[in-house]
Amino acid sequence: MKRVSAEEYVNRIEALRKEMITAGTQFYYVPGGDFHMSEYVCDHFKSREFLSGFDGSNGEMIISAEGAWLWTDGRYFIQAEDQLKGTGIELMKMGEPGVPRISEFLKEHMEKGLTLGFDGRCVSGGAFDRLKKALGEKEIVYKTDIDLVGNIWQDRPALPDGKAWLLENRYTNLTRAEKLSLVRAEMEKENCDVLVIASLDDIAWLYQFRGSDIDFNPVTLSYTVIKQNEAVLYMSPEKASDVKDALEKDGVTVRDYEDIFDDLKGLDERLTVWTDRERINVKVLDSIPGNARRILKWSPTFTLKGVKTETEVEQERSAHITDGAALTKIICYLKGLHGSDDLAEGRVTELDIASKLLGYRKEAEDFLEESFAPIIAAGPHGAIIHYEPDETTNASLRDNDLVLMDTGGQYLRGTTDVTRTVCIGEPTEKMKRLYTAVLKGNIALSSAVFKKGTSGRRLDILARKPLWEMGYDYNHGTGHGVGFLLNVHEGPQNISSGPSKMGDTPFEPGMITSDEPGVYLEGEFGIRTENMIVCIPKETTEYGDFYGFEVLTLVPFDRDLIDTDMLTEEEIGIIDEYHHTVYEELCIFMDENERKWLAETTRPLIDF
Amino acid sequence: MKRVSAEEYVNRIEALRKEMITAGTQFYYVPGGDFHMSEYVCDHFKSREFLSGFDGSNGEMIISAEGAWLWTDGRYFIQAEDQLKGTGIELMKMGEPGVPRISEFLKEHMEKGLTLGFDGRCVSGGAFDRLKKALGEKEIVYKTDIDLVGNIWQDRPALPDGKAWLLENRYTNLTRAEKLSLVRAEMEKENCDVLVIASLDDIAWLYQFRGSDIDFNPVTLSYTVIKQNEAVLYMSPEKASDVKDALEKDGVTVRDYEDIFDDLKGLDERLTVWTDRERINVKVLDSIPGNARRILKWSPTFTLKGVKTETEVEQERSAHITDGAALTKIICYLKGLHGSDDLAEGRVTELDIASKLLGYRKEAEDFLEESFAPIIAAGPHGAIIHYEPDETTNASLRDNDLVLMDTGGQYLRGTTDVTRTVCIGEPTEKMKRLYTAVLKGNIALSSAVFKKGTSGRRLDILARKPLWEMGYDYNHGTGHGVGFLLNVHEGPQNISSGPSKMGDTPFEPGMITSDEPGVYLEGEFGIRTENMIVCIPKETTEYGDFYGFEVLTLVPFDRDLIDTDMLTEEEIGIIDEYHHTVYEELCIFMDENERKWLAETTRPLIDF
Repeated sequence: MKRVSAEEYVNRIEALRKEMITAGTQFYYVPGGDFHMSEYVCDHFKSREFLSGFDGSNGEMIISAEGAWLWTDGRYFIQAEDQLKGTGIELMKMGEPGVPRISEFLKEHMEKGLTLGFDGRCVSGGAFDRLKKALGEKEIVYKTDIDLVGNIWQDRPALPDGKAWLLENRYTNLTRAEKLSLVRAEMEKENCDVLVIASLDDIAWLYQFRGSDIDFNPVTLSYTVIKQNEAVLYMSPEKASDVKDALEKDGVTVRDYEDIFDDLKGLDERLTVWTDRERINVKVLDSIPGNARRILKWSPTFTLKGVKTETEVEQERSAHITDGAALTKIICYLKGLHGSDDLAEGRVTELDIASKLLGYRKEAEDFLEESFAPIIAAGPHGAIIHYEPDETTNASLRDNDLVLMDTGGQYLRGTTDVTRTVCIGEPTEKMKRLYTAVLKGNIALSSAVFKKGTSGRRLDILARKPLWEMGYDYNHGTGHGVGFLLNVHEGPQNISSGPSKMGDTPFEPGMITSDEPGVYLEGEFGIRTENMIVCIPKETTEYGDFYGFEVLTLVPFDRDLIDTDMLTEEEIGIIDEYHHTVYEELCIFMDENERKWLAETTRPLIDF
Repeated sequence: MKRVSAEEYVNRIEALRKEMITAGTQFYYVPGGDFHMSEYVCDHFKSREFLSGFDGSNGEMIISAEGAWLWTDGRYFIQAEDQLKGTGIELMKMGEPGVPRISEFLKEHMEKGLTLGFDGRCVSGGAFDRLKKALGEKEIVYKTDIDLVGNIWQDRPALPDGKAWLLENRYTNLTRAEKLSLVRAEMEKENCDVLVIASLDDIAWLYQFRGSDIDFNPVTLSYTVIKQNEAVLYMSPEKASDVKDALEKDGVTVRDYEDIFDDLKGLDERLTVWTDRERINVKVLDSIPGNARRILKWSPTFTLKGVKTETEVEQERSAHITDGAALTKIICYLKGLHGSDDLAEGRVTELDIASKLLGYRKEAEDFLEESFAPIIAAGPHGAIIHYEPDETTNASLRDNDLVLMDTGGQYLRGTTDVTRTVCIGEPTEKMKRLYTAVLKGNIALSSAVFKKGTSGRRLDILARKPLWEMGYDYNHGTGHGVGFLLNVHEGPQNISSGPSKMGDTPFEPGMITSDEPGVYLEGEFGIRTENMIVCIPKETTEYGDFYGFEVLTLVPFDRDLIDTDMLTEEEIGIIDEYHHTVYEELCIFMDENERKWLAETTRPLIDF
């Protein structure tokens, strides 16, 4: 979205306040989501950015007559402070001491009996439940059907109109009919009559189609309602035109996107309905008859799609060779810049690298798009955890500086997400020490053997341990699930430190997760090393089943940044073996110069 | 308790069934606890052992006209199978596939509207809540005031009559008055008017007395009720006679043990009452007026007592030197048995070692008693996780076998709990490999550096990792909190793998925990290495506060069992440094022969 002047944002908030008066609401809540609780949203839903100018991926606002407040998390504190300058909007740093959550804030600021308004299509049932609980004693009146930002947003982008397309079964080897059977079997276990799903990636996974409604996420705006003898996909007819026939063959009816509300209202009250209130909006939930018995759990699609089929894993292995070659070429190019005039004269920028890398990725025939906005962060920008270069921030690369590159691609063969940090030239001792600590954590996690039933929350410490021993830490999770040609962030598992249902989900063979410890020194540099890893069975003994990981990502680590004195023999062996595989798999994609460099950079760490 | 013949246990269950008919209950539940939900109970409360002959520390029974069932956990499967032979009682192996919990079992076996009876003084409110919830649809009638085992138990031991005695403040440096202030401050935070505590160690901690009512746990049967301006200790007058005056000086009234029920019934209904339903029995809870607002959380004493004062830690350090000397002497004696006639002719038994070790411990002036029943387990007995030798099982030690010794003492200076496994003679390669893996886990945990907020559940993997890598595991927690001259098992923290509130309690400096990975090969041997560790601050950086552990236990590891090829340089350094400290602290307690051996066994692992 085009940035405007700070005054313009002030004007927009003033205009919103007038709408609030007309609507009779003293407080207005602007959530960050779309109708489907998607992590990334298309431009139509960027109300918060329209109002504030802050374009991080996580942010919510509250507006009253007295003020405007924006909440975001640690990844975006620096960026938000910058983008909110002059707008009069107060930044609320989530998780910092003394900073209330939105619900706590409202409890403190709203008088008894006042009204809180929001667009209920953009708020999950779970979020609304928590809000109501927190404000329980305040007797708040909720207006959940007012889209006031929509009223003042004159050139608001329309909903996207991309068509859904079928994903061939050879990429998954699990047909739509088989998936529907698996889902219905789970419904039967729960005595469930009706399953309602609004998560776009769940729906795309289940019906084996993909789309283009949201940047980076190949999904299509839709809902679905499934019974034992019926399945309805709610998607606008134009979007559905290329997939309708195939779906109908598997007994899936296609109806218009907005029809779900009336259809749900017509449900028999005696039925048992399964919804994941965290992933369905308030308007959909309010359409379900009030007396219907509810099952409130993760949708079965959420857990089923997290475990990849053998074919999907095989496809991902192949995609990672292609993807690894592209990134390896960029690293070779970057390393070659050391001492060059281009560098000295500031002619190579972060956006140049992003564009060059995209070019390499595009060489693959089945490349569709990037899997998220590329992070190419030079020097101090590396310390901004989710920094994305744009025209206003774009920096030139400097010699002897670190460049952190967190990027990924969507291929028909799957989704990639990889981070490498490289030094152009001579790193400092501090850079080496910290890079090596991060690398030690990365390989401690990927080489772990663990008992069936172990969740990511218990594995997390393996990645943090080397940093903790030096008094460092990183303010983000260690790993997230990755979709198969779907969202780069998905459940049901993750690797993180805080208590969470995903962190407590046991690993199962076939789950694909990222492994991405890092360290961030504000004003200096950032380091992150990220591989995608797939859970595999290791051994079964009388003590149980033991699992481990296979590393999918194939891109060399920066040997100039490795302090071998900090590594054990075992760690050196793991890195050498990995580098050997990287060379074997990637060398055919390299030109002569690149191949020479790759051989050199992947040779054993210690020369004898 | 004296074991009787299997037929006699059959008779006792038949007698109980007659009582059940008279009482009008079709099912009868025999819980394992006392009136205070203590882990160890005095003989008066051993109803389950009286009925079944099974004397493990964990076991509960259900009796109906059709059968009798006993539930116990993995530590006791082998022992229970043995002890229940011929009694007709069916063993229910908790946690095994297909084995229902008691509540699930009752749900399956009880017809709608039947009656379940039990002695409500021996069941916690929390356990009863869960039972009622699980059986919700069954419309069960509960008779919670019938002690049917009491009716048939003719020579039942009386309640113990030991006197409470005052613990001098120099051992804790936190007075009764200060503790009461801390507790009342916590009450105020929660807007709590009345705090009811039934946990014996909490009460002993708070009022700074100790007792002798339960073997190994120096506590006294009592309850307490605390308000802002009043505190009442409920304890029989004879028991309280030596502590009454001191308590009254600090504003604590002493009333008779049974008076709590009427006093609670007389509480004003408008008061807010704080109870930990997991640690208070049904009869006490039922005495609190039904309309009183409840706070259902751990009692503040439960969390406060877990963080030891600096003085307590200092005392524990001293106690561990004394205690370590006793165990080190035994190890020296055991190692010297190799090749002896005594050993060859089976003249040295597990009970001999237990008795000899107790003799050494008794040499300390302030030694009171053992902190739990000593586990001296030779050869295959080591694989029975909580094996305790008695006359019927007592085995002779054999040359070239492992001996696992898990023992501890109660000193005025604190509680100890230590496990060492030693080989008399020549270990096999398998013994060495597994001993070294256990040791690696033990020191990985004790040398961990972790960020403030980290709980034991996240640290647990450090201790298991080396075993998991070899396909082994242990079926128990990695560590438990240890009291200060109190229960050897206490909260609020622990180090364990499953989800639990204690496993999720963040470590705080001053918490004392055990570190005890192990491995158990049924029919072969068992290995466990246990140190007590105290959480200490390590470093504060801009990334946060980092904590670690200091090892309190001072007893050498068995160097004959260490395979140095499996250790990193860092691990060797940690062991060498530990052994150096062990020698320095203990040598003055050794006779000439012992000192020579200790010097030899604690020298650096690798000779240059």
